[in-house]
Amino acid sequence: MSKKTLRIIPLGGLGEVGKNMTVYEYNEQILIVDAGMMFPDNDMIGIDYIIPDFEYVKQRVDKVKGIVITHGHEDHTGAIGHLLEYVDAPVYATPLTNGLIKNKLNRRGLGVEPKLIDIQAGESVQIGPFKVDFFHVCHSIPDGVGLGIDTPAGLIVHTGDYKFDHTPIDGRPTDYAKLAEFARKGVLALLSDSTNAERPGWTASERVIDAAFEKVFYQAKGRIIIATFASLISRMQQVLETAKRHDRKVSFVGLSMTENARIAKELGYLTYDESQVVSTDQALSMPDNNVVLLVTGSQGEPTSILGRLANGTNKRFSVKEGDTIVLSSHPIPGNEEPVYRAINRLMEQGAEVVYEAIMPVHVSGHASQEEIKLLLHLVKPRYLIPIHGELRMLKQHKRLALEVGMEDEQIALVENGRVIEFNHGEMSLGDRIPGGYVFVDGSGVGDVDRSTMRDRELLSQDGVVLLNLELDKEKGSFKDLEIISRGFIAQDESQEMFAELRKRVVKLTQYPANNLQKEIHSVATSFLNEETKRRPVIFVTISKA
Amino acid sequence: MSKKTLRIIPLGGLGEVGKNMTVYEYNEQILIVDAGMMFPDNDMIGIDYIIPDFEYVKQRVDKVKGIVITHGHEDHTGAIGHLLEYVDAPVYATPLTNGLIKNKLNRRGLGVEPKLIDIQAGESVQIGPFKVDFFHVCHSIPDGVGLGIDTPAGLIVHTGDYKFDHTPIDGRPTDYAKLAEFARKGVLALLSDSTNAERPGWTASERVIDAAFEKVFYQAKGRIIIATFASLISRMQQVLETAKRHDRKVSFVGLSMTENARIAKELGYLTYDESQVVSTDQALSMPDNNVVLLVTGSQGEPTSILGRLANGTNKRFSVKEGDTIVLSSHPIPGNEEPVYRAINRLMEQGAEVVYEAIMPVHVSGHASQEEIKLLLHLVKPRYLIPIHGELRMLKQHKRLALEVGMEDEQIALVENGRVIEFNHGEMSLGDRIPGGYVFVDGSGVGDVDRSTMRDRELLSQDGVVLLNLELDKEKGSFKDLEIISRGFIAQDESQEMFAELRKRVVKLTQYPANNLQKEIHSVATSFLNEETKRRPVIFVTISKA
Repeated sequence: MSKKTLRIIPLGGLGEVGKNMTVYEYNEQILIVDAGMMFPDNDMIGIDYIIPDFEYVKQRVDKVKGIVITHGHEDHTGAIGHLLEYVDAPVYATPLTNGLIKNKLNRRGLGVEPKLIDIQAGESVQIGPFKVDFFHVCHSIPDGVGLGIDTPAGLIVHTGDYKFDHTPIDGRPTDYAKLAEFARKGVLALLSDSTNAERPGWTASERVIDAAFEKVFYQAKGRIIIATFASLISRMQQVLETAKRHDRKVSFVGLSMTENARIAKELGYLTYDESQVVSTDQALSMPDNNVVLLVTGSQGEPTSILGRLANGTNKRFSVKEGDTIVLSSHPIPGNEEPVYRAINRLMEQGAEVVYEAIMPVHVSGHASQEEIKLLLHLVKPRYLIPIHGELRMLKQHKRLALEVGMEDEQIALVENGRVIEFNHGEMSLGDRIPGGYVFVDGSGVGDVDRSTMRDRELLSQDGVVLLNLELDKEKGSFKDLEIISRGFIAQDESQEMFAELRKRVVKLTQYPANNLQKEIHSVATSFLNEETKRRPVIFVTISKA
Repeated sequence: MSKKTLRIIPLGGLGEVGKNMTVYEYNEQILIVDAGMMFPDNDMIGIDYIIPDFEYVKQRVDKVKGIVITHGHEDHTGAIGHLLEYVDAPVYATPLTNGLIKNKLNRRGLGVEPKLIDIQAGESVQIGPFKVDFFHVCHSIPDGVGLGIDTPAGLIVHTGDYKFDHTPIDGRPTDYAKLAEFARKGVLALLSDSTNAERPGWTASERVIDAAFEKVFYQAKGRIIIATFASLISRMQQVLETAKRHDRKVSFVGLSMTENARIAKELGYLTYDESQVVSTDQALSMPDNNVVLLVTGSQGEPTSILGRLANGTNKRFSVKEGDTIVLSSHPIPGNEEPVYRAINRLMEQGAEVVYEAIMPVHVSGHASQEEIKLLLHLVKPRYLIPIHGELRMLKQHKRLALEVGMEDEQIALVENGRVIEFNHGEMSLGDRIPGGYVFVDGSGVGDVDRSTMRDRELLSQDGVVLLNLELDKEKGSFKDLEIISRGFIAQDESQEMFAELRKRVVKLTQYPANNLQKEIHSVATSFLNEETKRRPVIFVTISKA
């Protein structure tokens, strides 16, 4: 492979290609775009979170010239701490994104001082052989950017997460002019967001939420509690504005909500009069119809404030009759169950609950099909690499590109870790490097493997039973047997069964055995299975005393 | 309470009110409507399925005069076997429903011979004080019925699952005339399906699928594999008809698909020429473009045929380039992850995958908002009891009823186990009896409690570690220590850590201890937590040898 080959490698993301990290490499110099994390699937048992497998980068740490982060969401920032443990390179991002990263790294207590460099949308920076143009994009967090990455091999456009909102809350639409300018120069390849490639039409503007909020505030008799993502700064702005019109004070509840609001306000991304905001204690002592509480937990997470309110375990305040609770969010696939359960439980406690199915209190932050087509017409890339999506979404993204006139050979559907090479303006697929994900569990990174998870699943299915047998040292005869179980069967149901099992084990000890431990294991396995049709994990220990 | 009070009690259903069973009681005589099961939520760890808690019925078995089943879906039939273990009463249902029940009970091997009595829609039967009118309803299985239950206290209409399909596959629309006839007589209360109460408009007819199938068959170059529910007999009919037009033979793959097709054909609910259907072996030996395979697994279940095809573990055949796979289904909430994963994996193997988001290859079997309003206008009930839905759906159902002119006090939003009483034409709420659900795990019914499930969750989070210490019998000094773990950490990662843990345990044995077992437990807990930030379940056993 020539050093003059441009190599692009999407990484990470649990079946979503290039969702969490993309590596750009030219002439033995590396630029990393984004470093995010993901939450595990429901069947990845006991895993805290997942980060991209960046082994490729670890083996080339001295070649990394810079890290660019497109926006402040966890799936683009959450692995920075892990990356900076290996890579000593500056991080380039817009002020809000850097503000959020800094706060995050402080909480984590990273050993080194990260070099965070603020770049405004519209500016550009030279990182090794890469001239990176930051351009503004609309998304569900302010100050998001896409990137024009000019390389000796050609110009690449990398959108990050985007949509084309004509009436965004912060008044800054996506930078169409810049996209057209790239097109004029000639774009070799476009890497762009496929999240909503299955969704027909055009994603609604954040502004449609205003009307829904207006209606909610108009009808609410008591407190209003709004649950949303702590990163959705524009939603905070909308709540603040609607609250002002309805003479309500707003309280940010919880650490992430409070800190993100503080950072956004300091940096000018959130605008409100100080008198508009009160502490949670103040809010709770005010008349109900003067109050809005902004909380986290719109995904039904049981440890979040909304989750605790639903379960009746929140310490500072509880749901009461007359509360209006708004879930300004969309359940992430896999979270439907906890979200709907939370809604039902809040209703049981007498709250009016307003959610997406009833009123348009949330819109997506990603481009739908018509926007994806518009982007293709604006950028006119020679090649398209759909990223940020599962294969099913990438395929739809490709279909859309074919519809607007691209040819099959201009579009690369790749998996994470696939090296895409550009030589003399031609795209080809190269090697596949490790490009999957790494499980993070507790403080361990990558020390839980699939076999450990299979064991966890077995344990979670039918629990564990421990048989601790004591034999007489001299005679080898039965002396004592302790049977302990966890997660197998309700305690009061097990007594009779364990008494019978004990008898069978005692019997076994009366005859000579080649491998008593194995025989006990086998007898216990089949006896418990007969009795319960279950297959707990069984441990047998034998000692002679 | 007077014997002349009519009591209605919705039961079962995991937060969905009256989904699986409803008890009608008058003058100490009981009629049971439906006896279904549900699959557990993702966080009900290791549970096979869930059935209604029918303790109330168990204590009054001799009062039960009959069981009526509205249609053949598992959530209405799946607990019949459990119910018949206690109740010796006839089961009344339409021929297809009884056919499916019989097959199910045979497979289960019930000790007693159930009395299954066929009733055709349009007929009525006297069950104790209840005169039950069966009327035809459209749903996603043929031969579904709603019930007019005439009691001395008044006439109740119980819809079962229904929609108003004007062009159903079997040509039998919902029986509007019967509904109007009930209205003429005067309906005391309506109990009806709330599943789609959040969905605006009118549920599309099953017929819209024909056009989608036509397009799929027209474009398909190789084999067509269609995954759907084995109970969706009308979908089978549509596949057979489309296949005939396109010169393809159909093979039913798998036990439930084959048996349901056989039963439906025998009873006249599925019509096709024998030459149209081939065995799976035959199908696999034919040219690809002459074949349609009908399989189960549209919910992504890993043990189903589609699940095994996705994972590459199906024995008889695998996915190949050129296959067109249709998921004619909608993911049940909580199943989104496995369904989408299956789609991606099938695509990775080169299949074209067609699913709801891309083409209308599935429609719901439940009434949407405009149909719910139509039903209310047709039946004109004095009281409405929304059932078959979570609280959020019942609330929307109530909102719809208010929109069409009912008053707040005419509508009862109740939870499972709440007794609803009717006296002299007036509705009131009575006691609450146990009305939740019972976990079925292996052969055990109700022997897994919440504490067992909590243990399973703990085990699934961080696994289990067993420390088996042997001390010298005389001196009490350290002799041996075995450390075994399952689901805690990858084997090769644990060696060093366990060596260090061993040292610490040895040290502990050198000093006198009040409770050595407890001390070892505590040292192991904190050491492993320090090292890994995990909290496995730890067992410590000590023997003296």
